[in-house]
Amino acid sequence: MKPTSPSTVDRRVLPDRATAGLSIGGYLIERLQDYGIGHVFGIPGDYVLSFYSMLEHSPVDVVGCTREDCAGFAADAYARVTGMGAVCVTYCVGGLSLCNSIAGAYAEKSPVVVISGSPGLQERHNNPLLHHKVRDFRTQYDVFEKLCVAGTELNDANIAYSEIDRVLDAAARFKRPVYIEIPRDMVSVVPPYPHRYLQLPVPSDLHALEEAVEEARRLIAESKKPVIVAGVEIQRFQLEDLVVQFAEQTRIPMTSTLLGKSVIRETHPLHVGLYEGALGREEVTNFVEESDCVILLGTFMTDLNLGVYTANLDPARCIYATSEQLRIRYHHYHDVSLRDFMESLVAARPAPTSRTIPFETASEPANYQLEADAPITITRLMRRLNRDLTDETIVVADIGDSLFAASELVIHGHSEFLSPAYYTSMGFSIPAALGAQIARPDSRLVVLVGDGAFQMTGTELSTIVRREFDPIVILMDNRGYGTERFLHPGDFNEIHPWYYHALPEVFGGGKGYEVRTEGDFDDALQKAWQDRSGFSLIHVHLSVEDKSVSLDRLAKRLSQRV
Amino acid sequence: MKPTSPSTVDRRVLPDRATAGLSIGGYLIERLQDYGIGHVFGIPGDYVLSFYSMLEHSPVDVVGCTREDCAGFAADAYARVTGMGAVCVTYCVGGLSLCNSIAGAYAEKSPVVVISGSPGLQERHNNPLLHHKVRDFRTQYDVFEKLCVAGTELNDANIAYSEIDRVLDAAARFKRPVYIEIPRDMVSVVPPYPHRYLQLPVPSDLHALEEAVEEARRLIAESKKPVIVAGVEIQRFQLEDLVVQFAEQTRIPMTSTLLGKSVIRETHPLHVGLYEGALGREEVTNFVEESDCVILLGTFMTDLNLGVYTANLDPARCIYATSEQLRIRYHHYHDVSLRDFMESLVAARPAPTSRTIPFETASEPANYQLEADAPITITRLMRRLNRDLTDETIVVADIGDSLFAASELVIHGHSEFLSPAYYTSMGFSIPAALGAQIARPDSRLVVLVGDGAFQMTGTELSTIVRREFDPIVILMDNRGYGTERFLHPGDFNEIHPWYYHALPEVFGGGKGYEVRTEGDFDDALQKAWQDRSGFSLIHVHLSVEDKSVSLDRLAKRLSQRV
Repeated sequence: MKPTSPSTVDRRVLPDRATAGLSIGGYLIERLQDYGIGHVFGIPGDYVLSFYSMLEHSPVDVVGCTREDCAGFAADAYARVTGMGAVCVTYCVGGLSLCNSIAGAYAEKSPVVVISGSPGLQERHNNPLLHHKVRDFRTQYDVFEKLCVAGTELNDANIAYSEIDRVLDAAARFKRPVYIEIPRDMVSVVPPYPHRYLQLPVPSDLHALEEAVEEARRLIAESKKPVIVAGVEIQRFQLEDLVVQFAEQTRIPMTSTLLGKSVIRETHPLHVGLYEGALGREEVTNFVEESDCVILLGTFMTDLNLGVYTANLDPARCIYATSEQLRIRYHHYHDVSLRDFMESLVAARPAPTSRTIPFETASEPANYQLEADAPITITRLMRRLNRDLTDETIVVADIGDSLFAASELVIHGHSEFLSPAYYTSMGFSIPAALGAQIARPDSRLVVLVGDGAFQMTGTELSTIVRREFDPIVILMDNRGYGTERFLHPGDFNEIHPWYYHALPEVFGGGKGYEVRTEGDFDDALQKAWQDRSGFSLIHVHLSVEDKSVSLDRLAKRLSQRV
Repeated sequence: MKPTSPSTVDRRVLPDRATAGLSIGGYLIERLQDYGIGHVFGIPGDYVLSFYSMLEHSPVDVVGCTREDCAGFAADAYARVTGMGAVCVTYCVGGLSLCNSIAGAYAEKSPVVVISGSPGLQERHNNPLLHHKVRDFRTQYDVFEKLCVAGTELNDANIAYSEIDRVLDAAARFKRPVYIEIPRDMVSVVPPYPHRYLQLPVPSDLHALEEAVEEARRLIAESKKPVIVAGVEIQRFQLEDLVVQFAEQTRIPMTSTLLGKSVIRETHPLHVGLYEGALGREEVTNFVEESDCVILLGTFMTDLNLGVYTANLDPARCIYATSEQLRIRYHHYHDVSLRDFMESLVAARPAPTSRTIPFETASEPANYQLEADAPITITRLMRRLNRDLTDETIVVADIGDSLFAASELVIHGHSEFLSPAYYTSMGFSIPAALGAQIARPDSRLVVLVGDGAFQMTGTELSTIVRREFDPIVILMDNRGYGTERFLHPGDFNEIHPWYYHALPEVFGGGKGYEVRTEGDFDDALQKAWQDRSGFSLIHVHLSVEDKSVSLDRLAKRLSQRV
């Protein structure tokens, strides 16, 4: 067995162009497009206006948002769907408003390119107090150094082309955000020397790879109860087809983590549902934990993924492969890329004992009988919604019970469930729906969002109206920070109630529904699916005590730690 | 002349209490109150819930906001009005959402205490992937180190009391934000040793002080055309009365910078209006620039303060005193505090030639004759508004023409004009109005805000409804980023129009007005002053081409640099 063409660099990117006459700004715009970036999210501001002007005259579509953090979330979702995203803002007042969104992209491995304008180099003599400056001209760079995997200030024309290449390569390779700062008097500068993009492959250590694959093949072949646990990196590194190919070839059942939900289409006959330790379905937990060979692929070991540490996986029975490490039992193989490992493992064709799935998987939507007059609950809401999901649906879940309850939805297709399930930043969902819709115009978006999260970024519906998109927003209103209420009661968890269904009047588009019963919800949801004229906002009044089974289990675990 | 009791530390703070039995969280809450902090703004989250619970059971009022950045702006405004403010949030998703607000507080010297919860020390073994974590447990601290003047992680009970003292002292002394991070398992820990707060005075160098004051006294006494330029630090260090005392005693006329607008009440007979270089009123500019002794007190030399470098002040004729430096002509005196310098200068009683003011100052509201059917313009709007301002009015201006046009308002009382006139972050005004109203419940708030800025943070009106406040929000709608249009035209400056006057229906409170003519505005403004039942939102439709005289001058200067 010899692996072929090992590389961790994105293979789509092999541009070869004449750079003569291309300005620094112009080169950056061309290189963004090499990575599939056709849209840049952001807010203009005076230190970035010349670059905005250049963008406006390029094939790249500039998507103006209401706030920078929203632009960051939208770019993050766009990156999750297409492979890379970008956000462009002005200095400090713009950039520093992005910190939380970019931190989330870092934590959950979403390659977002942050582009910020900055004061011109010619303006900086004697360190003047230019507007938007915080401490010194380096402050914003210093902050993003903590939140990005690579960064550059384009203040030297001689190396600007190669700096752009280096930083974009890092985003593609590590699937993390990167930072590019352009002084406004450098945007139109044409570097003096021609330049050719050199892709520097990062090959795996072939000996380590060979030994690891052989060991994994043997462990799998000898196992009686193997299982695959697919994580979010499978989506980030576009390895979905490879995992499915491996599972189908070996007949090994698959499960996913919460953060990796939908990286494998959940209607696949080998998919047994989500693994969430003691927080998930008992049958799935047992099925995974009694396995004698757990093959974890691209899985982050986060607290929520591990069911707040209720997961019980014996490392002695685990093969644990991610983009950052490859561990089999208690030893590590260095310098083996996730893709190389998986490709070689598929090529090695391990043949384990076939394992039957002893329970009904969630691959068929749960039976749902409408009780029209019953007050709607979050669990029943998900069951009703589940019936309607198709291959064209993208579900975006905000955090809290929007996420926990949504874990029971069965996602068709793959990569069609977006949620900040590790970093868990409130307010992700509405701007993320904007980003996902722009990335995939033919899809239909369903947003699950709580009232607290909606109040943070819900005004991004404004941009959704402007772009004439038609997401269905299901706003689950329990009049406060519901998850926190179960962790630690207090008046601080209560929030001011809004009449959310009046928002279409403010934005001049969309339609609002107010829902209290199962019948109301059924009716509103049907109308929403039919209505392609704008967004539908279904304001669902829930009982303050209502919670999903998952949240109930989670709250019992987490409240011990608060 | 001998100065007495020189000190740069806030003199109000001399607590002496028994700490026995006081937990770390409890001590922090007591110390905040020593600095006059009776309200903490924020959003709860699981890593900070135990501290929130402690706050809820203390005399400190917790003001829940819709978003963390809004809480930051509110705390900043509260600090500007009362002397110090605080914001309390959860780890990373909360804290990193504050970066821009806190950067603004740093840039404009507003002492805001950032309090963030964090994962418990006991939870950190083996560096687990706890939710909300970005890179490592230190990431948030590293970021705030760039944005604050001091910071601490309260992870050692032995030094927790003194760490709290050290950091709060820094906020009081430097008038900059500080950062305090509390691991959630440290909140209730009672330090083992008793503690007594020791105020460490930072005395001025008495020799330098004496020489500087004597030199300043002589220059002033010999001058024929002296003028005082009062800056924002006069407000931050509570030196307003001292400046007025000095001016009245010497009969020297006063002017203020844009950022320092209202630190001296603008109706004072010695106040000649704002000095803004070539951007301001020509009479004022000439009056200041022909002076043979310019006494700059607490003034930042920012680009906007200097009229985008059109200011023409010969250093050979300047006495320049701030909290950071004391410069007379071309030499510097080190270690002389601003307060000591001013107190000693007042005591030295310089007696300059009396200088007459050869023009009508703006101390009387401009004459305004209503033209009921004329379309409203921003200049006429300000003139009309000017008539109604009283000693009880606090004006909060967002950036753009909200700020530039508002420079022509005549502010009564002192410290009643709030605006981010140096850092110029959009979206400051609505949350700042909340903070100012809480700080000074008897005042009446008037907010001047553009449509672009309002779309960023206008939903904080929700909290204003919840608290039953009654600000008058004048929303100047030119359907886009108006200032930028004049700097660099482009479609990216256009934004989606909202029906702002429909927002009261969403928030369940307040009243909306739609205004197109001077008559409409007059009518709406009169009703708004009368209506104390909730906020009044006056949605003013302006022509896209409309701009104030100040913005016109500014755009001509700035557009050369974009």
